[in-house]
Amino acid sequence: MADIFERLLKNYGPIGQHRERAHGYFAFPKLEGEIGSRMKFRGKEMVVWSLNNYLGLANHPEVRKADADGAAQFGLASPMGARMMSGNTNYHELLEQQLAEFESKEDAILLNFGYQGMVSIIDVLCGRHDVIVYDAESHACIIDGLRLHPGHRYVYKHNDLEDFEKQLQRATALVEKQKAGGILVITEGVFGMAGDQGKIKEIVELKDKYDFRLLVDDAHGFGTLGETGAGAGEAQGVQDGIDLYFSTFAKSMASIGAFVAGTKSIIDYIRYNIRSQIFAKSLPMPLVIGNLKRLELLRTRPELKNKLWENALKLQKGLKEKGFNIGKTDSVVTPVYMNGGVEEATAMVMDLRENYGIFCSIVVYPVIPKGHIIYRLIPTAAHNDEDIQLTLTAFEETKKKLDAGAYKVEAIPDMAEVQ
Amino acid sequence: MADIFERLLKNYGPIGQHRERAHGYFAFPKLEGEIGSRMKFRGKEMVVWSLNNYLGLANHPEVRKADADGAAQFGLASPMGARMMSGNTNYHELLEQQLAEFESKEDAILLNFGYQGMVSIIDVLCGRHDVIVYDAESHACIIDGLRLHPGHRYVYKHNDLEDFEKQLQRATALVEKQKAGGILVITEGVFGMAGDQGKIKEIVELKDKYDFRLLVDDAHGFGTLGETGAGAGEAQGVQDGIDLYFSTFAKSMASIGAFVAGTKSIIDYIRYNIRSQIFAKSLPMPLVIGNLKRLELLRTRPELKNKLWENALKLQKGLKEKGFNIGKTDSVVTPVYMNGGVEEATAMVMDLRENYGIFCSIVVYPVIPKGHIIYRLIPTAAHNDEDIQLTLTAFEETKKKLDAGAYKVEAIPDMAEVQ
Repeated sequence: MADIFERLLKNYGPIGQHRERAHGYFAFPKLEGEIGSRMKFRGKEMVVWSLNNYLGLANHPEVRKADADGAAQFGLASPMGARMMSGNTNYHELLEQQLAEFESKEDAILLNFGYQGMVSIIDVLCGRHDVIVYDAESHACIIDGLRLHPGHRYVYKHNDLEDFEKQLQRATALVEKQKAGGILVITEGVFGMAGDQGKIKEIVELKDKYDFRLLVDDAHGFGTLGETGAGAGEAQGVQDGIDLYFSTFAKSMASIGAFVAGTKSIIDYIRYNIRSQIFAKSLPMPLVIGNLKRLELLRTRPELKNKLWENALKLQKGLKEKGFNIGKTDSVVTPVYMNGGVEEATAMVMDLRENYGIFCSIVVYPVIPKGHIIYRLIPTAAHNDEDIQLTLTAFEETKKKLDAGAYKVEAIPDMAEVQ
Repeated sequence: MADIFERLLKNYGPIGQHRERAHGYFAFPKLEGEIGSRMKFRGKEMVVWSLNNYLGLANHPEVRKADADGAAQFGLASPMGARMMSGNTNYHELLEQQLAEFESKEDAILLNFGYQGMVSIIDVLCGRHDVIVYDAESHACIIDGLRLHPGHRYVYKHNDLEDFEKQLQRATALVEKQKAGGILVITEGVFGMAGDQGKIKEIVELKDKYDFRLLVDDAHGFGTLGETGAGAGEAQGVQDGIDLYFSTFAKSMASIGAFVAGTKSIIDYIRYNIRSQIFAKSLPMPLVIGNLKRLELLRTRPELKNKLWENALKLQKGLKEKGFNIGKTDSVVTPVYMNGGVEEATAMVMDLRENYGIFCSIVVYPVIPKGHIIYRLIPTAAHNDEDIQLTLTAFEETKKKLDAGAYKVEAIPDMAEVQ
């Protein structure tokens, strides 16, 4: 008889199989010092492009003061229990009201963590007759929510409106045949890998023709897109067409937790039925207080979003001028597409870190097809011109080496030897 | 064609249907003031029995200092990103080492939240040929993990060893027939509603006869059971037989987050493959620092666990002497079983709160069968003799009223009128 552990340990998975050489360097690296554009990695200062600290709020003095004061006043234990049982407070309700107002929705509920929040929203909304139509590049938290769904789901090719409408037609035909169930469409405001916005406007326009509800995960759009920073719905002028607007606090807000906003009635329904919130602890008070301060700055300091975009556009323009392919991004997320094997990508990342002091994340096979490398740069309001210039130069030089095959011959050295 | 929202809003669910009268009183109540045995509810002081602050750590001065200092030093944003990408730190690794050592396991990984942590552990371990055998009264986070499992599962009657062995035999027959897959058994150290310990010792003994791996959720046993507080495995003398030991920080540790401990190899596998951790943010630094301090006190101050048990035994003895049925608890969790309808339970809870200043949680239909009421009292090290005496008196008097039918005639008043 087979043993579960024995079977698992035969294959540690796509990243785990490299863990002996990768651990602490490519996987589970430690960035030390205050969060900002310059941090220490293994003792060396790096220009860091891996953190979704879009507005630079992580170390904004007012945020740091709010975090410190909240923890001093309440401790990190308070409140205890789930919201519904004993974990409700005036601060939680105040943050919900402000988020709803900011997103031009009637009501909102806080979620104790973004990942389980999204999984549970999909679960609480959809019964076995409901059909979910979703974008192929949806984030893991959406995919895992779909895995809980007992009914049908139709995936459409990423941001492909023709395929979207086709899947919507299939979904419509199915619910009509069933004479039961409705349709939930799920997409993202900004896709975190490629940086392209979801086609929310075009999806909302199809509401004239088809009956469905729209749930948007705007993790990367919240605080970065739209006139006021309200996100992709605002940027595309269709906030009203989004039935449920979701964002984590883990990006622009530089915190944890999340929220979902919509009409008062559906939010009330969710509030009283969402499993990950009913059966798990409320968001700790200092995080709520810290998020109130972050939301205040996000709303009242447009200079933070302006600086973010100034930096993003400088970086993107610079990369394009140097001949780099940054794909279809129309957000601040900046992918750089190159060709090469996993070992070349590895050697190039090491060169960038060790010799240029540039720290960024890469995506390789099996996440994307073999032979492709994506560098993913996250500009923030905390970066400056020098950071950008150093990075453009480093990319230009390392790209030349890559194209010349300079990284091809090198085997991956044992990370214990690199210090 | 049906609309998802329209369908949902026809029935707000078991608790939601009462929301207009219940909100803020029976559901989503606000307990104000420092966490302890006395807190304010709607302006009145209450003896509180609803918080899993078992060891009284929520407001321990050393904990409060660690929480305040951690937030002042690092802010609540740090570290950003998932552990694997950019969210790893020396503090996270130190807490993991200390938890592993405390639980007599080789290694442990931190989980950013208990609920999504458990869901994801089940998901990362089990493939479609694996069979899960689990206790019928398992917590929602286990149930939702099971719902992600693509293979077979067999439920056994709560703590019923005969039925457990029967289900284990079915599972064994299935994996043998499949010629693939293994068996994962899941139970809890302490069942949070009834307070009875899972029969871990007897389950571990069956390892001589059957091949399976054992995962134990010890949320309520961690810090409260066993000579050193290491939990139900230690209390039952079978810690080595538990392959994966899980606990949240939301109970004895009065925090958020969780961990799972086991052999180095399987923890490494989980570390590199568990979706809720790979695709979501790391536990914030001040929570890690606060949890290091909590674990230190949990390990080095046996007087806290002694006081907890002294209080629990006084409460349980007092209730039994007054003729109350507290069921089969062999932990500090103290249920009180009564007979009555939902409206009677409601009126009794109001009487307890308004006239006796006793705040506790109740469980009624549809969670348990119609006609039954369970009061659930959570003693802590922060309670004192007066708290216990007041509560015993209040229960004695309100039980007399309940038995005399005094709560039967009252309709549930509109909560807006109660102040």
